[in-house]
Amino acid sequence: MKKNAFYTLALLVAISFPLVAQQSMFGETEIVSPEIHADYSVTFRVKAEKAETVKLTGDWMPAEGWVPGSVTMEQDENGLWTYTTAVLEPELYGYVFMIDGVRTNDPNNAFVSRDISTITNILLIPGAQADLYRVNDVAHGSVTRRWYSSPGLEMNRRITIYTPPGYEDSEVVYPVLYLLHGAGGDEEAWMELGRCAQIMDNLIAQGKAEPMIVVMPNGNVSQQAAPGEGKRGYYKPQFMEKGTMNGAYEGAFMDIVSFVETSYRVKGDKAHRAIAGLSMGGFHSLHISRYYPNTFDYVGLFSPAILPSQNVSSEIYNDIDASLKIQMENAYKLYWIGIGKTDFLHKNVTAYRDKLENMGMPHTFVESEGGHIWKNWRVYLSEFVPQLFR
Amino acid sequence: MKKNAFYTLALLVAISFPLVAQQSMFGETEIVSPEIHADYSVTFRVKAEKAETVKLTGDWMPAEGWVPGSVTMEQDENGLWTYTTAVLEPELYGYVFMIDGVRTNDPNNAFVSRDISTITNILLIPGAQADLYRVNDVAHGSVTRRWYSSPGLEMNRRITIYTPPGYEDSEVVYPVLYLLHGAGGDEEAWMELGRCAQIMDNLIAQGKAEPMIVVMPNGNVSQQAAPGEGKRGYYKPQFMEKGTMNGAYEGAFMDIVSFVETSYRVKGDKAHRAIAGLSMGGFHSLHISRYYPNTFDYVGLFSPAILPSQNVSSEIYNDIDASLKIQMENAYKLYWIGIGKTDFLHKNVTAYRDKLENMGMPHTFVESEGGHIWKNWRVYLSEFVPQLFR
Repeated sequence: MKKNAFYTLALLVAISFPLVAQQSMFGETEIVSPEIHADYSVTFRVKAEKAETVKLTGDWMPAEGWVPGSVTMEQDENGLWTYTTAVLEPELYGYVFMIDGVRTNDPNNAFVSRDISTITNILLIPGAQADLYRVNDVAHGSVTRRWYSSPGLEMNRRITIYTPPGYEDSEVVYPVLYLLHGAGGDEEAWMELGRCAQIMDNLIAQGKAEPMIVVMPNGNVSQQAAPGEGKRGYYKPQFMEKGTMNGAYEGAFMDIVSFVETSYRVKGDKAHRAIAGLSMGGFHSLHISRYYPNTFDYVGLFSPAILPSQNVSSEIYNDIDASLKIQMENAYKLYWIGIGKTDFLHKNVTAYRDKLENMGMPHTFVESEGGHIWKNWRVYLSEFVPQLFR
Repeated sequence: MKKNAFYTLALLVAISFPLVAQQSMFGETEIVSPEIHADYSVTFRVKAEKAETVKLTGDWMPAEGWVPGSVTMEQDENGLWTYTTAVLEPELYGYVFMIDGVRTNDPNNAFVSRDISTITNILLIPGAQADLYRVNDVAHGSVTRRWYSSPGLEMNRRITIYTPPGYEDSEVVYPVLYLLHGAGGDEEAWMELGRCAQIMDNLIAQGKAEPMIVVMPNGNVSQQAAPGEGKRGYYKPQFMEKGTMNGAYEGAFMDIVSFVETSYRVKGDKAHRAIAGLSMGGFHSLHISRYYPNTFDYVGLFSPAILPSQNVSSEIYNDIDASLKIQMENAYKLYWIGIGKTDFLHKNVTAYRDKLENMGMPHTFVESEGGHIWKNWRVYLSEFVPQLFR
């Protein structure tokens, strides 16, 4: 039957998926893109017979200010455009083509990630740090998308929960990391762009991190859920949702903690709670950990969006220094700050560091290369997590 | 702070997401595509100043044989191409642009689904049957991606599990539907293309379905997991993986049942087990339910890939008629077959129906319009599920 089955089913797919590019099944040579070579140079290919110019733009190329780096691809006589990079360092990269100025996803790469309203193709060069981002042959945790009730925000909200390998088969009680996304993100961001499940699986397998639950809530108080996953349906995601940094999220954060501590086998005390976030999520982590100043023994501020003034009319942002002082007096185990040297927030974050030093508030300050980018946040998570709950 | 915060963060996104199309933030008018009008006609827009021809291809247009339907869009003086459809019926639709022959995802629509190796934009026209595919304001189940051990296939494998609303907060013991994908699919297919979680949430909320657990395994025995989710990493998914219909999956299926029945609060008896699948998954459901002939009280064959011969050298496919007879004698509650009138498998499936009639094997046979398409499989699921466990 093998042959019959194959041909019958080749016919099947042709009929059932009329939008599929069918060249591969019916004649034309398969286009491979991206092709990752043994030395980790990469060849990109796209067929565009009528195009005048095809560019490749990828996040390994240096940007000039706001203009992402790009290179012009070369066209052969069949209209196939090709470009081969130099050897790329291990990393999870994003790229797209610009075909006569039109942003075009690679039609031969099925792997993409969404960032706000943009779909970008991805590829992974293995090795070094990037091996933490791969699905390796290790025990895997479970990732659940579920809903919880937030009385404080008067809505049901979607949340992503990572439970470590073995959670379902044991009676072990775990510590919890609350991991918050940035502006434009949602409860999917740390999974999709941050590789959280892979990083956790790998660090735990290597004995570098304690098994823990990671809770990834949605930090946009006007949203129930990530775009497309809530009752608002499909709409064009915006960078900042209404009311995102007005104190409402911080004020209702204990709804999330209560939900987690009644729904999972967790150690519900300060010694076994950590909170961290990137950019807006760093801002949220700063304020949540200070506003509930005896709740978290571990705080991580990843490129935190520490902004010049706090004139929002929320009592959450009153008496910041006083509450930081209480947080300090209550003591904690780790107050970790990471910032890139070229991050536009570098100045604000170092000013905040100086303020902590003047107050005598203990902290760890890590300066990395680079700017306000996911590459850094994945590294910060990988550095922060091994310091928790030990 | 509101203004400061906004501008600081607008700067932030420009720096942090260099691949984002930045027109919307810095001047140029926002392009809205797709724009769903009040009457449910839809306008599509894409800017391609240098293009000679831009076509729109969508799965609401009639295909001609293997050639998907398409329409030519109209260009204005600014290089913006536009097309407005007639009123569309309620449905989840897929579409892409063809810009001078290059398959191009809509750069203004962040919502896509992957089918085998192809990324297609989606939009949803609400109403009627399509309201089952929406996230409505109802109680939501949880969806977990986790891993189980398959001794029969000698690997750890990824699986998707839907638990109904309230599962985590009760001691209720639930029935289980095993829901299988087609060739080219994986443990994500029923979630992404089949809208399983939405259909289940909505049917349960309307009182039309019993609360149940839905188990969506990966039916490709050479795969650990969906492409990109296993240790094989990123690769171009193929329509049929090696060894997909050679009996190995059916032979190891009890690994999945054991996993589910030891890991979840389920009623582990025939009366509370259902199995259904589309295309290859219908083939699998036919053979699994017959090979374990006293295991499932409910069987659903959705456009099953019933193929002309079964000369694979697996004992699983021996004595098909004898085992069907045993399955019939053991009795069951429902043996449901759905097939589209223009499905290329229509003839084979009606021949199978005739065989069952000749054997006196009770069954329900539903003929729908249309072919071998997800539109039908979503409808079949919505018709099958309300008949289970009542």
